[in-house]
Amino acid sequence: MNVETKPAESAVAIVADLGRRAKAAAVALRNAGTEVKNRALAEAARLIRLEKAAILAANARDIATAQAAGLSAALQDRLLLDDARVEAMARGLDDIVALPDPVGAKIEEWTRPNGLVISRVRVPIGIIGVIYEARPNVTADAGALCIKSGNVVVLRGGSDSFHSSRAIVELLRQSLASARLPQDCVQLVPTTDRAAVGEMLRAMDWLDLIVPRGGRSLIDRVTEESRVPVLRHYDGICHVYVDRDADIAMARDLVANAKMRRVSVCGAAETLLVDRAALDTHLMPVLAKLHELGCEVRGDGEVCRRDPGALPATEKDWRTEYLAPVISVATVDGVEGAIRHIAAYGSQHTETIVTDNRATAERFLGEVDSAIVMHNASTQFADGGEFGLGAEIGISTNRMHARGPVGLVELTTYKNIVRGKGTLRP
Amino acid sequence: MNVETKPAESAVAIVADLGRRAKAAAVALRNAGTEVKNRALAEAARLIRLEKAAILAANARDIATAQAAGLSAALQDRLLLDDARVEAMARGLDDIVALPDPVGAKIEEWTRPNGLVISRVRVPIGIIGVIYEARPNVTADAGALCIKSGNVVVLRGGSDSFHSSRAIVELLRQSLASARLPQDCVQLVPTTDRAAVGEMLRAMDWLDLIVPRGGRSLIDRVTEESRVPVLRHYDGICHVYVDRDADIAMARDLVANAKMRRVSVCGAAETLLVDRAALDTHLMPVLAKLHELGCEVRGDGEVCRRDPGALPATEKDWRTEYLAPVISVATVDGVEGAIRHIAAYGSQHTETIVTDNRATAERFLGEVDSAIVMHNASTQFADGGEFGLGAEIGISTNRMHARGPVGLVELTTYKNIVRGKGTLRP
Repeated sequence: MNVETKPAESAVAIVADLGRRAKAAAVALRNAGTEVKNRALAEAARLIRLEKAAILAANARDIATAQAAGLSAALQDRLLLDDARVEAMARGLDDIVALPDPVGAKIEEWTRPNGLVISRVRVPIGIIGVIYEARPNVTADAGALCIKSGNVVVLRGGSDSFHSSRAIVELLRQSLASARLPQDCVQLVPTTDRAAVGEMLRAMDWLDLIVPRGGRSLIDRVTEESRVPVLRHYDGICHVYVDRDADIAMARDLVANAKMRRVSVCGAAETLLVDRAALDTHLMPVLAKLHELGCEVRGDGEVCRRDPGALPATEKDWRTEYLAPVISVATVDGVEGAIRHIAAYGSQHTETIVTDNRATAERFLGEVDSAIVMHNASTQFADGGEFGLGAEIGISTNRMHARGPVGLVELTTYKNIVRGKGTLRP
Repeated sequence: MNVETKPAESAVAIVADLGRRAKAAAVALRNAGTEVKNRALAEAARLIRLEKAAILAANARDIATAQAAGLSAALQDRLLLDDARVEAMARGLDDIVALPDPVGAKIEEWTRPNGLVISRVRVPIGIIGVIYEARPNVTADAGALCIKSGNVVVLRGGSDSFHSSRAIVELLRQSLASARLPQDCVQLVPTTDRAAVGEMLRAMDWLDLIVPRGGRSLIDRVTEESRVPVLRHYDGICHVYVDRDADIAMARDLVANAKMRRVSVCGAAETLLVDRAALDTHLMPVLAKLHELGCEVRGDGEVCRRDPGALPATEKDWRTEYLAPVISVATVDGVEGAIRHIAAYGSQHTETIVTDNRATAERFLGEVDSAIVMHNASTQFADGGEFGLGAEIGISTNRMHARGPVGLVELTTYKNIVRGKGTLRP
């Protein structure tokens, strides 16, 4: 059955069916032991390596469609799978097998004066919907993270990668069956009809969480329409603040790394804030290095006066996530000015201060209200792997539940367990 | 200015103004030390005692309006303040002063191989909207819990208690000012216009969390309309399961306590599940006690056959939160049947098992997917105070962020702090 040709009218029925199957699968997965889940994931890694040809053939269909539709070279590259990328996907699953299982871990335990012993124990969130755009490896990553954390997942990949995702999901489902877990622990929305997304966003009766992974318009749509709780991964307008007490060489290298190591990641720096008291000492060494690396500089008046290579920044620059070799540079009045600028323009993702002054650093770390705050470290460390969480499903810019990298632990919630001896409340 | 007569058209402007003020107040409160917050709370307790007459006078206006409108005696009682209730409110504030401040606490800290030291530290959620119904003491409780946890709060009380709430908020604001905190850390929506609630539910740009406290229709409206994350406190259809290995006297006393200690609380038992293998031994001692206490029994066929005092239960009974001296009683096939019944009909609030069999108990605690699961303890312990959290803002039936009692700790989130030495990402 060529499911992507199903008429739009059936989105309601399709999503309702996904829900019924997900609910039926959830009990077994929630109660599955670590060994069983790992067996499924190891088998999935084995199958992905074994069936590489089938995955690449499915991917070739997606690429052909993308070429015919005139997708940009960058988008086609995001979509493309090759031997190395398939192997990386399988290795990603191996890594998740090796990670500790958060389910069942005791977070805390205490005893009440009446003898009640209360503990909080990690349990899966339940059923998670992941809505993502082109990259087909998200299918394997998100599927495996959810399986390991005991969560049933419904994947809604981009239509561009539909065949690739379907091939990968099929292998995940086979591996679940081989571990005697319900295949429906992982489902792919079997239609590219956009109405199915709308149905998922209203599926409060069975979906516990929506994780959107993609660009601003996807996140905006999900935030606006969803009745299901959303774990958002929004803009990373990340700041580096170079303080008067910064080591000049450290500032130069750290800004270069934060901006230019990879410009397309959410932890890439977008704005450099320079202490007014450091303009004459620190600014030019830092900017010279950025120019040398091919970064465009857009500065305020003070910056443009000192750097003939800088273009004038506009108000819009302070609010822009370039994801490109461009940086905006503002002069601020010390750490207080930096904190104010970040509060006004930042996206509460990741900010770092470069300084040798410990008190200044602590003030910045305490008062900047972002998911990740750093001292003398590159913003490019905003990453689950770099945090030591293993794989991540995203960087949360939510304030509730989880902030920053979302790994296995953050994909769980807890229950309260109370043990008594026939204890009655007076 | 008689604010409650403002025209409906101004709800947009009123809520926008609340937002501007809340945002301006948030920075100072987020960074305020424990001592400053406690000074404000202690002063609030003092002022509430000192200004008791003014509070009671404001409450008398609300009561007069309620009487004229023909509100039920029960609702009028919920609304009523007297000397004892005002003193209880002040004592509630004293209790919150005595609780530990969760803000700034280190949840965990670890070091990466590259030398980065990463910690997670508790911070306030930000700005919280509390939407509640008649009981005026919620004004003081919710206001004080938010202040102590560093959260700015916008209170939207029931229109029936408008004058009482306004009098209490005025005292909270005076006490904030006396501690040199912004008065706008606590604001009351200055209109009883329902459109203001709708505006709050769309205030994603400044509200971080909505806590609805009230009946089903309020929670349903908030869940349906809100674009802001919601901490829900929904139905408590709590179950007691009496296992074949239960001590009969313990089962009798525990069911009586869980159901009849107070019937109107969310932790009151609504359904009794009896192991088929315990029907002949345990059922009648338990039901006899319930009848003796004046509880109506609605049973399935097995129950009605044994208890001539029982009425037949309908399908609807299994889904009903009576909050009244009524209990539904179902026969189940052992712990597995109990788990299945709870999964089908429960509200994931609080369930307890009575058994002397440890393996059976652990299975129940592990597999029942509720916020609170208990062994040989009364469901009436589902309460922040009984958990030792001090005051609570509600019992969360969310799956995300917090489950069960929501006290000060649960009103915080965390930030990730990363400390390096000029550390660059390779």
